[in-house]
Amino acid sequence: MKNNLFDTLKRNIELAQGRGQASTLLKNGKVVNVLSGEVYETNVLIDNDKIIGVGYEFSKADTVYDLAGQYVLPGLIDGHIHIESSLLNISEFSRLLLLSGTTTIIADPHEITNVLGTHGIDYMLQASEDVLLDIFFMLPFTVPSTNMETAGGLITAKEIKRYIENPKILGLAEMMNFPGVIAAVPDILDKIVLTKQANKIIDGHSPRLYGKLLQAYINAGIESDHECMDVHEAQEKLRSGMRIMIREGSAAKNLSDLLPLINVRNSRRCFFVSDDKHPDELLSVGHMNGTLRKAVGLGLDPVTAIQMATINTTEYFRLYDRGVIAPGKKADILIVDNLTNFNVKRVIKNGKMIVENNTLKAILKSYDNKIVLNSIKIKPINISKIKVIPQGDTINVIRLIPNQIVTEKWVTTPTIVKKTKKDKGVVVCDIERDILKLVVVERHKKTGNIGIGFVSGFGLKKGAIASSVAHDSHNIIAVGTNDADIYLAIKTIIKLKGGFVATDKGKVKASLALPIAGLMSDDTAENVSNKLKELLNIVKPWGIKVENPFVTLSFLALPVIPQIKLTDKGLVDVGKFKIIPLFNK
Amino acid sequence: MKNNLFDTLKRNIELAQGRGQASTLLKNGKVVNVLSGEVYETNVLIDNDKIIGVGYEFSKADTVYDLAGQYVLPGLIDGHIHIESSLLNISEFSRLLLLSGTTTIIADPHEITNVLGTHGIDYMLQASEDVLLDIFFMLPFTVPSTNMETAGGLITAKEIKRYIENPKILGLAEMMNFPGVIAAVPDILDKIVLTKQANKIIDGHSPRLYGKLLQAYINAGIESDHECMDVHEAQEKLRSGMRIMIREGSAAKNLSDLLPLINVRNSRRCFFVSDDKHPDELLSVGHMNGTLRKAVGLGLDPVTAIQMATINTTEYFRLYDRGVIAPGKKADILIVDNLTNFNVKRVIKNGKMIVENNTLKAILKSYDNKIVLNSIKIKPINISKIKVIPQGDTINVIRLIPNQIVTEKWVTTPTIVKKTKKDKGVVVCDIERDILKLVVVERHKKTGNIGIGFVSGFGLKKGAIASSVAHDSHNIIAVGTNDADIYLAIKTIIKLKGGFVATDKGKVKASLALPIAGLMSDDTAENVSNKLKELLNIVKPWGIKVENPFVTLSFLALPVIPQIKLTDKGLVDVGKFKIIPLFNK
Repeated sequence: MKNNLFDTLKRNIELAQGRGQASTLLKNGKVVNVLSGEVYETNVLIDNDKIIGVGYEFSKADTVYDLAGQYVLPGLIDGHIHIESSLLNISEFSRLLLLSGTTTIIADPHEITNVLGTHGIDYMLQASEDVLLDIFFMLPFTVPSTNMETAGGLITAKEIKRYIENPKILGLAEMMNFPGVIAAVPDILDKIVLTKQANKIIDGHSPRLYGKLLQAYINAGIESDHECMDVHEAQEKLRSGMRIMIREGSAAKNLSDLLPLINVRNSRRCFFVSDDKHPDELLSVGHMNGTLRKAVGLGLDPVTAIQMATINTTEYFRLYDRGVIAPGKKADILIVDNLTNFNVKRVIKNGKMIVENNTLKAILKSYDNKIVLNSIKIKPINISKIKVIPQGDTINVIRLIPNQIVTEKWVTTPTIVKKTKKDKGVVVCDIERDILKLVVVERHKKTGNIGIGFVSGFGLKKGAIASSVAHDSHNIIAVGTNDADIYLAIKTIIKLKGGFVATDKGKVKASLALPIAGLMSDDTAENVSNKLKELLNIVKPWGIKVENPFVTLSFLALPVIPQIKLTDKGLVDVGKFKIIPLFNK
Repeated sequence: MKNNLFDTLKRNIELAQGRGQASTLLKNGKVVNVLSGEVYETNVLIDNDKIIGVGYEFSKADTVYDLAGQYVLPGLIDGHIHIESSLLNISEFSRLLLLSGTTTIIADPHEITNVLGTHGIDYMLQASEDVLLDIFFMLPFTVPSTNMETAGGLITAKEIKRYIENPKILGLAEMMNFPGVIAAVPDILDKIVLTKQANKIIDGHSPRLYGKLLQAYINAGIESDHECMDVHEAQEKLRSGMRIMIREGSAAKNLSDLLPLINVRNSRRCFFVSDDKHPDELLSVGHMNGTLRKAVGLGLDPVTAIQMATINTTEYFRLYDRGVIAPGKKADILIVDNLTNFNVKRVIKNGKMIVENNTLKAILKSYDNKIVLNSIKIKPINISKIKVIPQGDTINVIRLIPNQIVTEKWVTTPTIVKKTKKDKGVVVCDIERDILKLVVVERHKKTGNIGIGFVSGFGLKKGAIASSVAHDSHNIIAVGTNDADIYLAIKTIIKLKGGFVATDKGKVKASLALPIAGLMSDDTAENVSNKLKELLNIVKPWGIKVENPFVTLSFLALPVIPQIKLTDKGLVDVGKFKIIPLFNK
């Protein structure tokens, strides 16, 4: 290590003085200097993975690219993203990001850790080794989110201690349990103390937290937030010392609401993150380049915008070796045609020209292992397990609220079918009243747990859909109009080792396999995107009233979002923070 | 450690929510929020050494101060200072800085390390423990500056390795040997590698370095510069990735020249430092508060100026716990009456009100030890050792250039006095031609080395002066009109264990003892300042043509500044980088 660094320094010091020839010269590019806030035409000399010099005094190299006035930006950086949300494996995900000019991300492997615990973290660390994109991680630490569900992982202070010194781990991921922080729960404080002692950082997650409660939360050492919804909230957090991550993802888009916050005095404390990006958006819009395009389109100064995707992010994450075009820094460079559309012309990663003509010229290695490919562990089930026998006069139905992930409780009478008059009967779905059966099957520990409830608002008129992506534990969740299709959908998910499935009349109508931890595909982004579109096209005519039923489904098992959810342990009243029965007596 | 942090977090989280009572509330102050760039009236709650909350929602505490609209700033920070230049011991130095609203400094113990090597570093670390002011250090590493002088210390890669992990040491001090860096000298690269591997920073010192040479220097990992003389130089360095330390010291004042550099886009990369401050200036003008006053007087926006003495500095030095008024941060606070004069009304350090009515209400502990108090180690000398016997037709005289520390060589005939015609005679001072004798006596290793030369430009018409402050080795240096007074001055320095002395006609006319390493006083700042004035008042009428003869003297032994200097090893031709004889044959 010492000799490597010694030799690198020596060589670079000499190359900067014109002794020896460097590998690459970018000629006549307009450099966006995020240090001085200027844009000016000049040359950039590169050797190995470093920028050696910037200036017209550098004029030769093994390979010279004449950029003819195109813009030279530091490679873009995403400060907070869940790779799993893309449904893509790391190598494929990295390909799309590199094509978009992103060269570094800070990922929160929250989903896979809920499925596989530290095996998930190990997998992400390993799988991110040979994908060219630099992937740093924040450690998920609220796993599982509550004890009202069965997750596949458990992260205690012991696990934090084991991973926190890893140089690819920059700190603790979004501290979602803010009531726990504010209550100074010992286990949470232990994790914070370990992180602080390792001199690492802690990301926040504190939607709509203000005043004393916010300041209590910040006193715990939490340094950022990506949940601001409006300028008022963001301004208070920024004033209080938090870095403001302005989120522009596929699900949540806060950029246009938060843009009025930004001014020349405070922009250094803000940067862009995506949180989650779906494959179709990565393919059609891009990644951080799309965010820059939108921000500039909304009126943000382009240099300020670029700072918010480069140096501001590296300052927060203490990644001192990158984020600027300057001597001695990492040669991660994005070349675009203009500062309006940010069309990617070329990308240089670790000093190598890897993207030209929208084509990645490098091979990214995939990595899988048995553990992640066999994440579905289920006690044998049969269809009778999802039958509901009447046990009371009314049932507690989960009612969707359009365009929100919060739900409300609807107490109504069950629809009962009896074979004979004396039969107690079974509770069935009622398409007329839009009451569908919702089933959550535990898939991590072979507990045999099956949670059963009813949901209103999907609008499904036939068949069933199921998914192995269901926050936070990612048990199998299915919604449907009849037990046979629900059961087939669940069985198909198990067969696929995870994925999305639509069934109708005893047949699988469409599916997308997600065999990596039941969360991610091993296919190309294009195929994943197409299969997903096909799935949605097939189920849309079935009466679906929500934008994307798989997304809606994925939040119906999350027991930290009000008001009523379903886990493998049963219906959860989130406000009361406890399991409630399906029937009211 | 863990339990302390755990308990602190727990308590502070609770206090922020109003559970329990905090120690101190600052009411109705105008907080300068260096994060958002705003100034607004609010309350600040403090407990122990931390800021708990900012806002009107905090309204009670054990002690409440109504600030009635005075301004609340983060405690000021000096990013680069040599404590030794103040001639004060650390405790007294700290008193003046705290009274000026400075709460953290980053010191370079370059002088004492040249005198005492690692004993000097140990002493500074120890002596800075109980002085309330937070003193961090950068490791001096070019000790000695050359092998053409005898220093008391030697810093090799071994010493860097020994100290670099110390949490009070933030990195390597100003990398003065830029030719060595650019030549990739192995010893220098070794020190850089050790520092980088410890994830610490390296300050630069690269006056008038531009273009390829500058970029070579930056490739070595050097991250700042405090030697910029004009905007052109500073702009190039800032663009190339260096933080610009804008120096406003007692000797060098660059603020007014560099101020046009600063704008809203680049100010984050700039901060104020003082490099050196003399005791009279600390007493009369103050410290960083004086710099803020001048900067704002010259037209800089006050909030930008304050950022340049707080958050910009902490960002560079990675001192994440301070430099802002926000929950969870260190309660180091300066209260001033306005943002024009920055008159210090109160200072809070570690949450305690320590300055009110220009009075320090805390006791700062002094620390001395035998090693630093007995730094003068000399082989017995007698007056005959400084006699000069003619050995050639001409001598090489050091000629001062007014107001510069560079000198030039003047070849002239010696003035010789003979007792008899046959006597070879002795070379004497020639007051008419302003040729005075200059003597450097080695004081670290009892080598008996005495360097003798002649100097023109002092103008002294009688007596002699001597000093134990002489960069970089701090041997004893004396200039005078006759051997008897020179000898007496040197003997008096030895007796005082270091200091400044003026002698005439066989008597000591004035002196200032600097017994701490021969560099610093154990007296109060007021006494040091008065004695210094008295000394200057006494010697001024002796014909002195330079502003401060002790300052001029202190640079005459520095063999890295052109053109001709005198060390204990003899005359140095700096251009040729070698010792030359006094006489030309």
